[in-house]
Amino acid sequence: MPTVHAYAATEAKGELEPFEYELGDLEPDQVDIKVESCGICHSDVSMLDNDWGISAYPLVPGHEVTGTIDAVGESVTYVSPGDRVGLGWHSQYCMTCDQCMQGHHNRCANAVGTIVGHHGGFADRVRAQAAAVTKIPDGLDAAEVGPMLCGGVTVFNPMLTKRLSPTARVGVIGIGGLGHMALMFANAWGCHVTAFTSSGPKMDEAKKLGAHETINSRDDDAIEAAAGQFDMLLSTVNVNLNWSLFLKTLRPDGRLHFLGAVTDPVELDLMPMIFGDLSAGASPVGSPATIRTMLDFAQRHQITPVTEHFPMSKVNDAMEHLREGNARYRIVLDRD
Amino acid sequence: MPTVHAYAATEAKGELEPFEYELGDLEPDQVDIKVESCGICHSDVSMLDNDWGISAYPLVPGHEVTGTIDAVGESVTYVSPGDRVGLGWHSQYCMTCDQCMQGHHNRCANAVGTIVGHHGGFADRVRAQAAAVTKIPDGLDAAEVGPMLCGGVTVFNPMLTKRLSPTARVGVIGIGGLGHMALMFANAWGCHVTAFTSSGPKMDEAKKLGAHETINSRDDDAIEAAAGQFDMLLSTVNVNLNWSLFLKTLRPDGRLHFLGAVTDPVELDLMPMIFGDLSAGASPVGSPATIRTMLDFAQRHQITPVTEHFPMSKVNDAMEHLREGNARYRIVLDRD
Repeated sequence: MPTVHAYAATEAKGELEPFEYELGDLEPDQVDIKVESCGICHSDVSMLDNDWGISAYPLVPGHEVTGTIDAVGESVTYVSPGDRVGLGWHSQYCMTCDQCMQGHHNRCANAVGTIVGHHGGFADRVRAQAAAVTKIPDGLDAAEVGPMLCGGVTVFNPMLTKRLSPTARVGVIGIGGLGHMALMFANAWGCHVTAFTSSGPKMDEAKKLGAHETINSRDDDAIEAAAGQFDMLLSTVNVNLNWSLFLKTLRPDGRLHFLGAVTDPVELDLMPMIFGDLSAGASPVGSPATIRTMLDFAQRHQITPVTEHFPMSKVNDAMEHLREGNARYRIVLDRD
Repeated sequence: MPTVHAYAATEAKGELEPFEYELGDLEPDQVDIKVESCGICHSDVSMLDNDWGISAYPLVPGHEVTGTIDAVGESVTYVSPGDRVGLGWHSQYCMTCDQCMQGHHNRCANAVGTIVGHHGGFADRVRAQAAAVTKIPDGLDAAEVGPMLCGGVTVFNPMLTKRLSPTARVGVIGIGGLGHMALMFANAWGCHVTAFTSSGPKMDEAKKLGAHETINSRDDDAIEAAAGQFDMLLSTVNVNLNWSLFLKTLRPDGRLHFLGAVTDPVELDLMPMIFGDLSAGASPVGSPATIRTMLDFAQRHQITPVTEHFPMSKVNDAMEHLREGNARYRIVLDRD
């Protein structure tokens, strides 16, 4: 029964402090992961701050974990000690609801979030159901894989599940942790890729990451000028923009797809949606099968996120860097 | 060059009065239809009142025309004089844009509406491009087919093009001209069908039309109680309801699909859309191919709308009946 050395906040918006807890007995379907590194996601901030009202303290953030299997429950055959694995947003699924049975574990209403009522990966060890971990393919740098396990699969998921065609023109709104991975995936997918950002330096970087074009997301005239261009818009921002303006940039049958969590209602003009046969959708992270497919695709195209690394002991510095909006583009904490 | 005897309004919200006009020469790809009957659609009211700011006067309404081919242009081979045909919302397509070339003529940006800058079917004769008319299959009563050519195909179109499964649970919001046809089509499609209406008498009628269940659309508690039930909601109302409440009634991957023209922006809560992988969409009428498919399906299942008939000379009485909300469920004008 190993003692876990973690970092936890004891109250909303609190600093992260060293925190120890006991893991208890391993269930037959569980594994323990020895953490090598862990990405930081904006949802770690939202959970630390209890923005969604579902946080429990002490809260150990971290749900973009990579490491090696340290122990396996007695019924686990899928992974073995020493295997390189990753763990994302979910650490457990019910495995038997309609959604799980259809392969859509990411929609399981009874899934346990890795940092929702469960201690996450800002730690030397984390426990999860074997089915919720993913083997990391050879040829991918494990230290760079973490940010793909939540942020990456969130942008990859609609490309796969909504059957995005490589002939499509795709717009990515917001070039940050999620958006920069969306550019890389959409480019490798074969699409024409446009980055919407208000940052001049990010416009240049977006082109290096895979954007064929950039549009200033605060320039209404420039957005208007892109009328009827896109088959899919992937929004990664977590604030409301003038969505009806963005709807105009869609081709017939186009889709405005929200990945960033906007807590205020979104407003959409219906008439252009009717005439254009448009849709607006949203989705969470991906299923384990989608994560596997993403990692295979990432390995083939040698896609890894652009990261900044901090030692885990400097977690509060890393969080501050993220909160200040300075992350370029995703932060990874490494075992000290 | 036949003279057409029609009914037209000369100003917004004006009465319909006898109006004659000359058709001029028939273009090679056009046909003239001798009108037998013509359905009245809510969009005739919207166009008469210039609600959408696109009306031109004198305006001859009527875009749910059935009749027989009277004359064909020199290059027309698809139909012949005497053929029973129908004409819906569109009387002409460009035939060469990307949308037309892909079979999505209903999304053609250059299509001509039958009553938009063109004289419609409240007349003894109407002209249209041959490709825009549809042969009426044997075994369907032509006098009842008219309302399917705009209202009917509007509700049938998303069932076909969004690949609705017969295993789906479908909710129809608003049981009027469109909604009552949606109940019949969805039932014949094999789906479980729920009607949302605030009218007690319509609840009973909805069950006869194909609904397995009814829910009072003004009873928030009853809607809440239907949480997680529907794969597709088809809204036929043209006012805003509490859409975020309706979103809760969707199953994962469910779709709230708008067919009624709501001119104010719609508001949607994004968080349940993210967690449920939900989408909201909208669509216009169907393509000619979809109209053909619908009529074939309607013939096989003996689906025709529930209609009230007025002689065309009583068109103002019929319009008044519709404006007062008393149509059960669709009005058809017949040649005097």
